[in-house]
Formats: sequence, C-alpha cells, structure tokens
Amino acid sequence: MSFLDILNKRYATKAMNSKVVPQEKIDNILEAVRLAPTSSGLQPFEVFVVTKDETKSSIREIAWNQSPVTDCSHLLVFAAWDNYTVDRINHMFDLTNEIRGFKNEGWENYRQMLLSGYPQRPPKTNFEHAARQTYIPFMAAITQAALEGLDSTPMEGFDADSLDKILGLREKGLRSTLLLPIGYKDVDNDWLENH
Amino acid sequence: MSFLDILNKRYATKAMNSKVVPQEKIDNILEAVRLAPTSSGLQPFEVFVVTKDETKSSIREIAWNQSPVTDCSHLLVFAAWDNYTVDRINHMFDLTNEIRGFKNEGWENYRQMLLSGYPQRPPKTNFEHAARQTYIPFMAAITQAALEGLDSTPMEGFDADSLDKILGLREKGLRSTLLLPIGYKDVDNDWLENH
Repeated sequence: MSFLDILNKRYATKAMNSKVVPQEKIDNILEAVRLAPTSSGLQPFEVFVVTKDETKSSIREIAWNQSPVTDCSHLLVFAAWDNYTVDRINHMFDLTNEIRGFKNEGWENYRQMLLSGYPQRPPKTNFEHAARQTYIPFMAAITQAALEGLDSTPMEGFDADSLDKILGLREKGLRSTLLLPIGYKDVDNDWLENH
Repeated sequence: MSFLDILNKRYATKAMNSKVVPQEKIDNILEAVRLAPTSSGLQPFEVFVVTKDETKSSIREIAWNQSPVTDCSHLLVFAAWDNYTVDRINHMFDLTNEIRGFKNEGWENYRQMLLSGYPQRPPKTNFEHAARQTYIPFMAAITQAALEGLDSTPMEGFDADSLDKILGLREKGLRSTLLLPIGYKDVDNDWLENH
C-alpha cells in the first residue's frame, strides 16, 4: 500500500478492544520514531511505552476519560526536552562523532553555533522548539502503525502537568506533548470508523 | 521500498542542481500534506509553493544563504495560523459537515467545546499550537518526496519575520514555521551525501 493510500485509510480510532500487539510491530514503530529527522539532529525527545493497566488507568483519568488510553495495547507518550542545555547539545554531537568515527570541521563549527545560541534562550522558548520536533516522529509512528495493520489514536487532550507527574517526567528534564494509544479497533464501538 | 527504508535512506540534501521536478510529483507531495492529520482536524496551516527565481533569491538572503533555497525546483513554505478564531473554527466544522452531507451531534458538541476554549486563549498560545501541527504535514511531505525519488532539505534556519514580509503572510493571518526546498541533489557538492 502506498503512503498516500495509508494516509487516506488511517483515522483516529475512537474505541479499542484491548487485544495485545506483538512486540515486533511495536519495535518497528519505535524504529520509525528513531529514524525520523529533527532539527539539527538533536532528537530532543523521548518516547515512553506504557503497558501496565494501573498506569494506563491513572493516565485515562487525566485524559478526559478517553477509552483508548486503557483499551489500547501499548500507550506511547511523547515527551520533549524541557530545555536545550550545553550538556545535551554536546552529548548529541559527541554521539554523532562516535558513530561516524571521525570529527568534521563543519560539524564542530555547527556545534559551537548551537552552543552559543540555544542554552542562552529562555527554557520556555527551547521547550516550544523541542515540542514542535516531537510531531515529526509522531507522524512517523502513526504511519508505521498503519503499515503494521494497527490502529492508533493521536491525542493532545490530556493534562500535561498531571501526566508529567504520573510518569516522573519533570525530574528527567522532560515534558509530555502527545499521547498515542496503539492497538486494535473495537469495531462495534468505534463511531468514527465509517465516516 | 518500505517506510523504514525511506527513513533510513533520506537525509537533508545540502546542495541541489536546479533541475525542475515534474508537476505530478509536487502534486503528490501536496496531496500527502493535505491528507496528514492535525489536531481536531482543523488543518491550521497553509503551504506556499515558491518557484520564481526572484522570490527564491530574496528568501535565500534571509535564510543564512543556504543554496538549496535557490537551487531547488520547488520551495515549500509551511505557515501556521497566527490564531484560532471563531470564524476559522466554524469554517472547518462547516466544511466537514458539507463534505459528509450531514450534521453529527457529537461533532457539533465538539465544535462548541473548541469555540468555548480556543478563541479565548492568547494568540501566541494558539499560534504555538498551530505551529506544532505543521510538523506533521511536513513529515508527510519529506516522506512523499523521498518516495518520488526527490531530495529535500528541511530548514528552520531563516528569519521568520522577514519571510512573512516577503510572502505577505501576516496579512493572511499566517506565520511561517518551516522551509522545504525540493529538487535533485548536486552530487558533486552535497557534502552530506556520503555521511
């Protein structure tokens, strides 16, 4: 199926049936997330995969009681860096050098440019910038989910502060931006299916 | 080629050769943009396709002199709504009703919920929310471009205020968020090609 076919076919499933998704499919979705590009290659986010019923239930309470939060198989939580710091920038540039096996002068100049700009900006500006980036891997995730024959329900409708508390994100220097329940639709109760 | 293969293969081309891309390929990219999902289905953005040399040159001047801005075939500019207003929200809900051919009570309740929330928020909050959404169709665009055998160069490195002036975006209630030159790489000068 072509990418345009996938985009035409997929939709935000409104009810799921709790069936468990094979780990391999989830791994492919996370690989799509990992390979999605972000600004300057900084990948300023993490994705958490929630499968415990108790945690899902707590999250549903602060997500407008939307049923896919508990009735999905795997609940993906996208969380952006709360700030761009010197350490975080250096870590990502060092990692690139390590994997490439050499240093590139242009790349090192680019590192210095970011170091002289980003950490000096207000944390809120940096968080907003990082938050935007999470929408790129998010798009990769819903695409790969559809290719795996899975349903998903993109969600911004939750209390981010409460979610950050439930998952302890602030202590990790992260703030949640998106929820993505992944699973199988409950055909009898998914009112959006035929629209 | 699978979606994961595409993600593995694509990269931000650093030099292009000015060759013109067939319109059909651009149309497919714009169709992927159109089909990409956004929050509440509001599609709070527009995409401008710049092909005039003069306009490209003006934009390159405020985009760190990055050569793909002029040496691409088609330059896509993503611009988000500067605010969520009552008119804009109603327009999108009315359009959905028109296309579906009927009114749905849940959908109408949802409209009222958005109308009672979004327009009352500060324009900056609404713009930031809309700006995040543009990263979803942007991801759809770079994916479809790669599937069409094209190269592209995602860019945030430009002066958004100046770009808004060049294209007259503010008068249209829009603010630029992303540039995406699309074309063919200049193999001899694209230093990133072999990394």
